[in-house]
Amino acid sequence: MTITVAIDAMGGDVGLKVTVPASVRFLQDTPDVNLVLVGDSAGIEAELVALPAQLRARVSVQHATQVVGMDESPQAALKNKKDSSMRVAINLVKDGQAQAAVSAGNTGALMATAKFVLKTIPGIDRPAIAKMMPGTGGETCVLDLGANVDCSPEQLLQFGIMGAELAGSLLHKPNPSVGLLNIGSEDIKGTENIKRAAELLRDSGLNFYGNVEGNDIFKATVDVVVCDGFTGNVALKASEGLAHMIATFLREEFARTWWTKLCALAALPVLKHFKARVDPRRYNGASFLGLRGIVVKSHGGTDALGFRIALEQACEEVRANVIGHIADRVASQLQNLKRSESEA
Amino acid sequence: MTITVAIDAMGGDVGLKVTVPASVRFLQDTPDVNLVLVGDSAGIEAELVALPAQLRARVSVQHATQVVGMDESPQAALKNKKDSSMRVAINLVKDGQAQAAVSAGNTGALMATAKFVLKTIPGIDRPAIAKMMPGTGGETCVLDLGANVDCSPEQLLQFGIMGAELAGSLLHKPNPSVGLLNIGSEDIKGTENIKRAAELLRDSGLNFYGNVEGNDIFKATVDVVVCDGFTGNVALKASEGLAHMIATFLREEFARTWWTKLCALAALPVLKHFKARVDPRRYNGASFLGLRGIVVKSHGGTDALGFRIALEQACEEVRANVIGHIADRVASQLQNLKRSESEA
Repeated sequence: MTITVAIDAMGGDVGLKVTVPASVRFLQDTPDVNLVLVGDSAGIEAELVALPAQLRARVSVQHATQVVGMDESPQAALKNKKDSSMRVAINLVKDGQAQAAVSAGNTGALMATAKFVLKTIPGIDRPAIAKMMPGTGGETCVLDLGANVDCSPEQLLQFGIMGAELAGSLLHKPNPSVGLLNIGSEDIKGTENIKRAAELLRDSGLNFYGNVEGNDIFKATVDVVVCDGFTGNVALKASEGLAHMIATFLREEFARTWWTKLCALAALPVLKHFKARVDPRRYNGASFLGLRGIVVKSHGGTDALGFRIALEQACEEVRANVIGHIADRVASQLQNLKRSESEA
Repeated sequence: MTITVAIDAMGGDVGLKVTVPASVRFLQDTPDVNLVLVGDSAGIEAELVALPAQLRARVSVQHATQVVGMDESPQAALKNKKDSSMRVAINLVKDGQAQAAVSAGNTGALMATAKFVLKTIPGIDRPAIAKMMPGTGGETCVLDLGANVDCSPEQLLQFGIMGAELAGSLLHKPNPSVGLLNIGSEDIKGTENIKRAAELLRDSGLNFYGNVEGNDIFKATVDVVVCDGFTGNVALKASEGLAHMIATFLREEFARTWWTKLCALAALPVLKHFKARVDPRRYNGASFLGLRGIVVKSHGGTDALGFRIALEQACEEVRANVIGHIADRVASQLQNLKRSESEA
């Protein structure tokens, strides 16, 4: 099966100069994928000029007259930018002309547009943002990372189901373990919502591990960490802040004197290797889960390497039929719920 | 004024072998402080045997027959351990025989005991756990870190007042800036509780900066970051987890081959300097704020250097009269509230 991915070519801090080169590299390495580049067609064509014919045949360009600004409000984008590169890319998924959309644009606008155009899967209250994070023991899928500030226990269960399908497909694990983010591993810890969510997850048929704590994210104690979007967003951004602080301090220490600069030179190959291992571009790509279509958000400030990773993630989700599996699992969950209610 | 600090000598993963050496070093360097070491008196005396007489004169030993276990439930500790080293140390603060208590013991039991024995300052609903964190631009006081999973807007305002007094005294700043942890800097972001808390903080007379995000903690964008205990605990532990992951990866990269080991040797002085800068022991010491007495919690696994930092923090709070200032500020806050209510 050939997969078609629609790309918001104008999205991100840089736009075309990142999205098009990334797309070209991705095409070269991924024979079963066609791309639709959406945005200013003249600008896109200019970037594609040197592309060999056999690759060019796998790219189509779809003109869109508008671009959603990085700071534009989701409501304004939804109302006034009906011919934006972002909106048109998502329309292509809705119309079945593409199996996934990838954008490095404004997160709020992308979520609002995706929700409005694609709608949620039956049984899913609201979509969530999920991302793979590195850890000492492997990788962990964390969700929600900011789409929902308040979450009911039922929503947290839905996040567990969605996260398990995503982690299963990206980590190639048949029955990924799911943990619930809490402030202690004991059952008595946390808010009432969290305690009830733990019960629902325990009865869900998922491979539920129990409560996990913040540090478990970077230990990869479980394959999926479930949390509300407020907590998840704060944890993600605090981690980004700490990583930035550590990098700054390391740079400062190595730049202190001519002698420390010499030390840096000696350690350079090792530091480079280390840097590659924690390179945020390797973990670029946040999946919007729970929609009737695959949408992956790339970091706005990433480069072509990072954007390519987001494209790969979108294709993995298509290949693994993540949406179909989420829909099946949620449907059977709802049936179980009905059965147990009629028995009660 | 001579300050007296009561020390739970038995608390922590190691106990006496950490707390007593730390106390001795602290005495040597801090002439205006006397210490009461609480716990197994025979064991404590054995550790003090070599102490010069003029230092020995500044230490008294208070026998306590019980020790609170690190995994004991707060309720059990409160009910069954009335002669524990932890409880007796806090009693000394209540009775005015000490101005502060420091313990590396069980956090939950320490908080429950401190709350029960000391009670909260009038106008403070519940105590919070506050800690200084390192950042690229300085240090930030973050609270609450886990004492309160659900927080009302009024509690978040109280945290702002308490955090400002602590940060003011530890950072020696007269009017520290206060930020509210949120998932975006815009006013419209966050839960209803957060939005209401922002209004209260804006009207409080504090130096309120507005919303901050997770990464601002490690940038030291503000002097105080206010959040509920659930979010704060997750952010703290996620950061600890990430720091551990980075340290592990760095170690692994430098240990890979004989060549990378040689690189490590060359970079050792710089890496040591870096490590000292982010040494968690330098940030050991979480203050329990909002009580009618100063209680500082040391990390259970710290060594003598870390425990000493917690002792210093306790003394700084005594010297700056943090409790008196919190009480005054909360009282005037309550008066303002009454005035504006009677005017309305």
